[in-house]
Amino acid sequence: MSSRKSFIQKTFLGIAGTVAVPLLSRSNSFQPNKKENENNGTNPSDLPVGFAGYTFAKFDLDTSITMMKKVDVHYLSVKDIHLPLNSSQETIDAAMVKFKAAGINVYAVGVIYMKTKEAADQAFAYAKKVGMNMIVGAPSYDVLDYAEKKVKEYNIKLAIHNHGPEDALYPGPKDVYDRIKNRDARIGLCIDIGHATRAGVKVEDAVKEYKDRLFDLHIKDVTLAEKDGKAIEVGRGVINFPALVSSLKKIGYKGISSIEFEKDMEDPMVGIAESVGYYKGVVAAER
Amino acid sequence: MSSRKSFIQKTFLGIAGTVAVPLLSRSNSFQPNKKENENNGTNPSDLPVGFAGYTFAKFDLDTSITMMKKVDVHYLSVKDIHLPLNSSQETIDAAMVKFKAAGINVYAVGVIYMKTKEAADQAFAYAKKVGMNMIVGAPSYDVLDYAEKKVKEYNIKLAIHNHGPEDALYPGPKDVYDRIKNRDARIGLCIDIGHATRAGVKVEDAVKEYKDRLFDLHIKDVTLAEKDGKAIEVGRGVINFPALVSSLKKIGYKGISSIEFEKDMEDPMVGIAESVGYYKGVVAAER
Repeated sequence: MSSRKSFIQKTFLGIAGTVAVPLLSRSNSFQPNKKENENNGTNPSDLPVGFAGYTFAKFDLDTSITMMKKVDVHYLSVKDIHLPLNSSQETIDAAMVKFKAAGINVYAVGVIYMKTKEAADQAFAYAKKVGMNMIVGAPSYDVLDYAEKKVKEYNIKLAIHNHGPEDALYPGPKDVYDRIKNRDARIGLCIDIGHATRAGVKVEDAVKEYKDRLFDLHIKDVTLAEKDGKAIEVGRGVINFPALVSSLKKIGYKGISSIEFEKDMEDPMVGIAESVGYYKGVVAAER
Repeated sequence: MSSRKSFIQKTFLGIAGTVAVPLLSRSNSFQPNKKENENNGTNPSDLPVGFAGYTFAKFDLDTSITMMKKVDVHYLSVKDIHLPLNSSQETIDAAMVKFKAAGINVYAVGVIYMKTKEAADQAFAYAKKVGMNMIVGAPSYDVLDYAEKKVKEYNIKLAIHNHGPEDALYPGPKDVYDRIKNRDARIGLCIDIGHATRAGVKVEDAVKEYKDRLFDLHIKDVTLAEKDGKAIEVGRGVINFPALVSSLKKIGYKGISSIEFEKDMEDPMVGIAESVGYYKGVVAAER
C-alpha cells in the first residue's frame, strides 16, 4: 500500500465506522438522510450530486466509500474498477451491503465499453446482478442494434457517454443523440460536460437540446474549450456552471449530477471537495 | 513535526516552489493574477474569497501558504499565530516576501484582542510594521476611546469582530455597531457570520443593516442558529448563503469574504476546499 493510501485510510477510515446491516437488499430505493433545510432556504434534493466511480480509480472500494462520505455525497455510478464485470453475485452483494451501510445509493454502472455483442451480454447481465436500472455505456456502432435488444429484454436503460474530440464513436452529445433518437426511449445520453466542452459544445445548450434523452451527467471542468483542455477543479475552468444549472432546472432534470474529477488522480481529495462544494453552491444559488 | 504536517508538507509543498523575489515591498497593492473569464460568464473579482488566518492555527506559515495555494485563494487576514505581535521588522518583511511570492495579498491583521491601552499600542504599531490599513480586533469597552485615537493617529481602520453568545463584549454585530456608529468612520465591523448566527442574527439582514461600517467578513457555517451550533463545512449548515451573497452584491460590498474554517482543525484541508468551493459557487451563480 502506498503511503498516500495509507494516510487517507488512517485519516478518513475512522469516519466510516462500523454499521451493522442485518438484511441484504439489492433494491435501488435507498434514500439518503436528507432533510429540507428550512433555515437556509435550499432544498438539497434539487439536482443531487453524485460521483462517477472513475474519480476513485486509484483507490479501492473501501477507501472510495470513505472519500465519498468525507464530502457528504450519497450517489455513485459504480465503475468496474471497484466492482469487476465478472464479479460473482456474492461479491456484488457484499459490495452493495457496504455501499448501503455507508448511505451511498449506487444508481448506475459504468462507463462500460461494448465493442462486441458478448460485451453487451456481459454488461446487461452484470447490471442486473448489481440491481441497477441504468448502464452508462459506449457501444460500438455495430453493437447498437444488439444493445437496443438487450435494453428491451432487461428493461435496463442505456445512457451513452461522449468522450471528446479523440473519441472515434461519440465525441459530443450530438453524436450520441443522432444515433439513438429513433431508438427505444430507454436509450439516452450521459453527457460528459468536460469532454463535450472540449468537443466545442456549449453544455448549457446541449442539456436543453437533448433533454428528452438526458439520463445522466458527468460533471467536471476543463481549462480550455478545445481538444487540449485539461481537467481542473469545478469552477476554475471555462464551463459556465450557473448557465448549466439554470438549464438543468429549466428542463426539470431528474437525474444525478455525478462529479468525475480527473486531476491529481493519485491525490484527488482536496480537488474533489472543492468541486463538490462549487457545484452544490451553484445549485443552491441558481434559481 | 507531526506525521500529518509532514504529510501535508510532502504533498503540497512541491506546489509552492521557489520564486525569486528581488525587491522587498510592503505595499498592500498586490493584485493576484485574476483574469475575467469571458467563457464562463463570471467575474472572479466579485466578492473575492480570502482566509482568516485562524483557519491554519495548527500549521506553520509555510504550510498555511501551501494550503491557500492549493485552493486558489489569494487574500489573507494574517493571525498572530503566524506572525507574532512582537515580531521584528525583519521577521515581518521576510514573511511578507513569502506571501507575495506565493501570490497572496495580506489585507489585514487579526483578530487582535485589546484589553488594555498597551495592547492597542502594540496592535497599531504592529499593523503599521506589517503595512496594513486594517486591523480586525476586539477592544474592551474601556479601550474603545483610546483605540479610536489610534485609528486617527495611524490612519488604520479597525474592524471589530463579534464572537457569539459567549462573548461578554460583542456577541453579535449590533453589539459592535451600537458602540461605534458615532465614532470615526474608520471604525467598523468584521461580521463573523457563524458567531452572529449563533447569536440569533440573520446575517443576510445584518450586512445590509450595518453596510456603512461593514469592513470585513468571516465566512463559515454552523449546525444550529443557537449557542450550541458547531462549525461545519460551508453549505452544510443553517446559514442561507445565497441570501447572504445576494445582500452583499446589493450593498456593493467591496471587502474580502474570508473563510474561517474551524472544524477538523488538525486536518482541515478537505473541509476548507469544500467550503471555498461552495462559497465561490454561490458567488458565481447569485446575481
